[in-house]
Amino acid sequence: MSSWRGVLEQYREWLELPQGISPVTLLEGNTPLLSIPHLAADWNSSAAYVKVEGMNPTGSFKDRGMTAAVSVAVAGGARALICASTGNTAASAAAYAARAGLRCIVLIPEGQVAAGKLAGARAHGAEVVQIQGSFDAALELVQELAPLLPAVLVNSLNPDRLEGQATAAFEILDHLGGAPDWLALPVGNAGNISALWLGFRRMAEKRSSGTPRILGAQAAGAAPLVVGSPVENPRTVASAIRIGRPARGPQALAAARESGGGIVSVPDSEILRAQADLASEGIWVEPASAAGVAAARAEIESGRIDIKGKTIVFIATGHGLKDPALYPHVNDPILTVLANPRALMEALRT
Amino acid sequence: MSSWRGVLEQYREWLELPQGISPVTLLEGNTPLLSIPHLAADWNSSAAYVKVEGMNPTGSFKDRGMTAAVSVAVAGGARALICASTGNTAASAAAYAARAGLRCIVLIPEGQVAAGKLAGARAHGAEVVQIQGSFDAALELVQELAPLLPAVLVNSLNPDRLEGQATAAFEILDHLGGAPDWLALPVGNAGNISALWLGFRRMAEKRSSGTPRILGAQAAGAAPLVVGSPVENPRTVASAIRIGRPARGPQALAAARESGGGIVSVPDSEILRAQADLASEGIWVEPASAAGVAAARAEIESGRIDIKGKTIVFIATGHGLKDPALYPHVNDPILTVLANPRALMEALRT
Repeated sequence: MSSWRGVLEQYREWLELPQGISPVTLLEGNTPLLSIPHLAADWNSSAAYVKVEGMNPTGSFKDRGMTAAVSVAVAGGARALICASTGNTAASAAAYAARAGLRCIVLIPEGQVAAGKLAGARAHGAEVVQIQGSFDAALELVQELAPLLPAVLVNSLNPDRLEGQATAAFEILDHLGGAPDWLALPVGNAGNISALWLGFRRMAEKRSSGTPRILGAQAAGAAPLVVGSPVENPRTVASAIRIGRPARGPQALAAARESGGGIVSVPDSEILRAQADLASEGIWVEPASAAGVAAARAEIESGRIDIKGKTIVFIATGHGLKDPALYPHVNDPILTVLANPRALMEALRT
Repeated sequence: MSSWRGVLEQYREWLELPQGISPVTLLEGNTPLLSIPHLAADWNSSAAYVKVEGMNPTGSFKDRGMTAAVSVAVAGGARALICASTGNTAASAAAYAARAGLRCIVLIPEGQVAAGKLAGARAHGAEVVQIQGSFDAALELVQELAPLLPAVLVNSLNPDRLEGQATAAFEILDHLGGAPDWLALPVGNAGNISALWLGFRRMAEKRSSGTPRILGAQAAGAAPLVVGSPVENPRTVASAIRIGRPARGPQALAAARESGGGIVSVPDSEILRAQADLASEGIWVEPASAAGVAAARAEIESGRIDIKGKTIVFIATGHGLKDPALYPHVNDPILTVLANPRALMEALRT
C-alpha cells in the first residue's frame, strides 16, 4: 500500500508553484478511476471511467486546487482567505483554512447553496455571508475585498488553484498509462476544464502522453459559453455550475477548441437522468457532476461523437451527499410499516 | 501512483473469504491516515492520527465490509440483499447492490436516520422501509425475513462484513509499519471494533506486527456495553451508534479486554466538542465518529490512560456530510448583506 502524501508532494516536479513550500494538505487526490461497464456497453466504447472526485476530503475536486492555493498563501504570510462560492469552494477553503489556522471568509449567493455544502464550511469555522445577488456578483465582490482586508483570494482566478487541479490529469495519465480519447466534465466557472487541459498539455510535452479531446458540459439554463454571452439569471438544478459569467471562460473555450472537443449544453432533465445512470453503476454524485455524462450521451446518440472502441473518462466533481435533496424520489414519503414480519412481507410484495 | 483495486484485491491473501470470488468493488479503502497535530500536542503523544473512513465511496467505513459481503453473496447466486440500518449500512448496501445488479431492502427505525444517509440509499434504488420500532427491532426483523425472501443479510452479523472491515487494520499497519499503541473508535453495533481487533490479531500472528490497546467509545445514552445490559431506548445525537443491543457485544468486550483497553461512555456534549476539535484540524466527521476522541480525552485527562510519547489512531467512521444538521451552529441563521463592498466590510468587522 502506498502512503499517499497529497497531490503537492506526489506531483511536485510537475507543478509550477514556488519552490520549497510546505504543503497544507488533507491528503487530497488519489481518487479512484472507476469503470462504468453498463454505459460503456451502451455506447460500444472500449472503456468508460468515472474519476470519483467526491472521494476527496471535503467531497469535491476543489481540494486539489485548495491545497495548492492555501500552501502558497501560508508561505506568503497570509492570515486570511476569501472566496465566492456556490458551495464546494466554500467547504474546501474552510477545511484547508482550519488546517492552516487561517481566517476564512465565504460569500455565497442568497438561497442558492445546497445545505450540506454550507454546513461543512461552517463546521470548520468559516465566516459565511450571504449576499443579495448571484454567484457572479459575489465573485466580483471578493476581488474588491481581498486587497482591502487583506485576504488571499482562493477562487479559481487564483492561478495556484489551477496548478493543483491539474493533478487530476496527472492521476488519469498515471492510471491509464496515457491519455484517454475523450474527457467529459461539467463547466461552471470554468477553472477545472482549464486546469485539466493545462495538466494534459504539460504532461504531453514532457512525456508524450498524448491529450484527450475535451467535452465540456453546461446546463441549458446556465450556458454562457454555449450561447456566447453572459447569462444574467442562470438557472439549473445543478447548483455547482449555476454560473452565468465564468471567470475562466476564454480559457475553457480555448481548451475545448485546442483539444478537438467542444462545450455543449444539456437540459436539467438529462442531467438528472445521467445522475440516475451513475447511481445504478454504484456512484452517487451531485447533479452537476453528471452533466458530462448527459453531454456525452447527447453527442454520441446524435452521431456527433463516435466513441466506438475508444476510451472516455468522466470527471465526477462532487459527492451525492453534497446535495441529497435534489435526487428524484428522495423527497417522496417513505413507506412506514408495523414492526412485524407479516406486515413487512406484505409491504415488500407490493 | 498506485492503481488501487479495492480492499479485497489488495488484501486477498489475508482474508478468510471463499477462494476465487470476483470482487464487487467501488474501489473502497486506501483511506488517509491524517495527523492531528494540535490534539497530539495537547496530549504530549508522539503522534495522533485519524483514519479518515468518510473518504470511502459512500462516505463511511461500511464499504470495506460491504464489498466482501456482496462479493460473497454474488458468488453464491444471491438476487437480493437485506439489512437494518441507522443509515450508513443502508447507503453502502444500496450502492454495492446497484453495482452488482441486486435488489436491496433496507429497514430503518422510524424518524431516526439522518436525511443525507437515506438519500444515498434511495438514490441507488434501494427499497427503504421505516419500521415503527428501534434499530434493534429492525435488526431482529431482518434476521427473520432474510430466509423467507430469500435475501442475504448484510449487517455485521454477516461474518464476511467483518473480514472486509479488518482491512482498515491492515492499512494502518502498512502505513505505520506496525501497530499504534492505542486505537480508539466508536462502538455501536460493535462490528467494527470486532473486525479491527480480528485484523490486528491476524497480522500480529503472521507478521509479528504487534497489537494496539483498543479504546471503544459509546454515547452515554446508548452504552449497553458499559452499563452491562441492553438499553431499551438508546438516545444520543450520534445516530450511527444509537444502538441499545449490539449484535457483536460479547466480541467487542473481548476485543477491549484482550487488547488491554476498555469500553467507556461519553456524554453527547463531549462528542460534539470532539467533533469541533477535529473540524479545527480540517476534518469534518459525523458526530459518532468523534466519540473515540471524546473518550480518549476523558481517559487521558483523568490519568487513566497515559499516551505521553505514544502513538494513537482514531477511526473516524463517517463523513460530516452524512449528518450536516447536527453540527452546533450550522442551523443558526446566516448573515445576509447587500452586495456592496462597504456593507460587507462593515459586516465582517462585527
